[in-house]
Amino acid sequence: MRFATLPNGTLDGRLHIVSRDNTRCTPCAAAETLQEALESWDSLTPKLQAEYDAINAGDGAPFEGSKALAPLPRAWQWLDGSAFENHAELMQTAFNLPPLDSGGYPLMYQGISNQFLANAEDVPMRSEADGIDFEGEFGVITKAVPMGKTDTADSIALVIQINDWSLRVVGPREMKTGFGWIQAKPACSVAPVAVTPDELGENWRDCRVDLPLNLHWNGTWFGSPSGYPMSFGLDELVAHGAYSRALPAGTIVGTGTVSNTNYDKVGSACIAERRAIELVTTGEASTPFMSFGDTVRLECTAADGSPLFGSIEQKVIKANA
Amino acid sequence: MRFATLPNGTLDGRLHIVSRDNTRCTPCAAAETLQEALESWDSLTPKLQAEYDAINAGDGAPFEGSKALAPLPRAWQWLDGSAFENHAELMQTAFNLPPLDSGGYPLMYQGISNQFLANAEDVPMRSEADGIDFEGEFGVITKAVPMGKTDTADSIALVIQINDWSLRVVGPREMKTGFGWIQAKPACSVAPVAVTPDELGENWRDCRVDLPLNLHWNGTWFGSPSGYPMSFGLDELVAHGAYSRALPAGTIVGTGTVSNTNYDKVGSACIAERRAIELVTTGEASTPFMSFGDTVRLECTAADGSPLFGSIEQKVIKANA
Repeated sequence: MRFATLPNGTLDGRLHIVSRDNTRCTPCAAAETLQEALESWDSLTPKLQAEYDAINAGDGAPFEGSKALAPLPRAWQWLDGSAFENHAELMQTAFNLPPLDSGGYPLMYQGISNQFLANAEDVPMRSEADGIDFEGEFGVITKAVPMGKTDTADSIALVIQINDWSLRVVGPREMKTGFGWIQAKPACSVAPVAVTPDELGENWRDCRVDLPLNLHWNGTWFGSPSGYPMSFGLDELVAHGAYSRALPAGTIVGTGTVSNTNYDKVGSACIAERRAIELVTTGEASTPFMSFGDTVRLECTAADGSPLFGSIEQKVIKANA
Repeated sequence: MRFATLPNGTLDGRLHIVSRDNTRCTPCAAAETLQEALESWDSLTPKLQAEYDAINAGDGAPFEGSKALAPLPRAWQWLDGSAFENHAELMQTAFNLPPLDSGGYPLMYQGISNQFLANAEDVPMRSEADGIDFEGEFGVITKAVPMGKTDTADSIALVIQINDWSLRVVGPREMKTGFGWIQAKPACSVAPVAVTPDELGENWRDCRVDLPLNLHWNGTWFGSPSGYPMSFGLDELVAHGAYSRALPAGTIVGTGTVSNTNYDKVGSACIAERRAIELVTTGEASTPFMSFGDTVRLECTAADGSPLFGSIEQKVIKANA
């Protein structure tokens, strides 16, 4: 099944069912909002499936992804992992920090969840001097997860595509405290369509998105790394988050920046990683961070090239003082 | 003004106005929930004040703090500082970690905000081996704060008293990653009554609570450190949090564990700090962490001994497997 949230003047927006080709949509009859649907996901599934079957049979109005909000415009919790080991290693190099010691556990921080930006919304930032960067990643939206649940694959309701905006000059200063990031992590953006794992077919593998995430910065190709080579699957990240807390329905759990070891071929999903690679290979990080007016585009399509999450395509602008 | 939230079967509970002596309460007429009140705080203030005047003139039913939920049972954001320098220094000693380098900025992490435990609710924990500990602190609940706002004293709507539950065996492992705490920080508990800063009179000073927080563990006095000697005021902590994000109405910002340098006289607000002191003064941390069945009591009263936030008094229990 595929879902999008369209603006209706409320903070949660109006849930819509989207056709398998992302061209048509219809207001969801079974639930007003995605949060409401997630809170009763298992019992609503037959109704949602019937609505999805109907729209795939030809119902609905035209769907324009660029007009959608984030599928869950606000959520009760956002736990972002960093499950691509290659990225973590390169970032420590870029930050001039010692190798991370996570004791064999996933890396994870909690970030802003009361606001997820729409896929085509301008992104207000305070200062170019903060080192403005995108971070392409995938994520899942969960049903309620009881504290201590360890086998959580069946807690995953939906898969999404995320741009985790980051401020790279601020990041290392906050990371050194051990407290995680507050100032270095502004609100994230989410692609318009949230899909159930079965929409990915065999490319949902080991609770990982086995597809490339294609990134373009100011219209120029930047990277197409695969979402597969994670040290921990998204089910393991969910379980890590639920060790000592119950996760509410609508918790969003992220993979962290997608990153592959063959970056010479597939590129990167954030500027900081490219700069780390430059530092390692040439001794100097030469690519600058983003400027006001810059655009970034992220899209992961299905293996046959058909639309999946839709695209994130945004411009960075100067925030009002 | 004073507020409490009583259970009514919903996750947000029902907002009540509480009399100045914390003995009587009445359902708030101007807003159903505290979240609703905070979203229109300035415009609702005259109505809320009139309701508060009425209850102080003798209206209302008996108020039993132990039956109240947290004033804001769920919030969109919880940003916990660590503004008592003395605590941070002692904790690094206890964790066998190098001194913190925060670059002159406040220390802050984001924690669970979709669930704040009630003051008398049993606290489920997974394992005694995790190093179960209380952390007595103060906090504020804010109005909406625009991104980049620096002078935020007028953004503070309410002052609260918090027990920030912590798992000390897990904490250092997570802190070493730089990502902050996920597993080491279960849901916090909050005292029943949230008060406007003016209720503290001259003891609300420099956006700090200039009063002792009294802690008892299993009925034995544990500490009475003052909330005043913070390196940053709560206004500065709010501004730090709002650097690159708009804070939604109902954001809760915490002081971190209350801690004073004259700990030989006033004790501590968490076991980990007492253990750090033992380590520093005797070479061995001898006080164990909490066991299932243990209780902790936290209460800060007004300077004349009259009730202020009410008490947190809870028992730790083993969580269901």
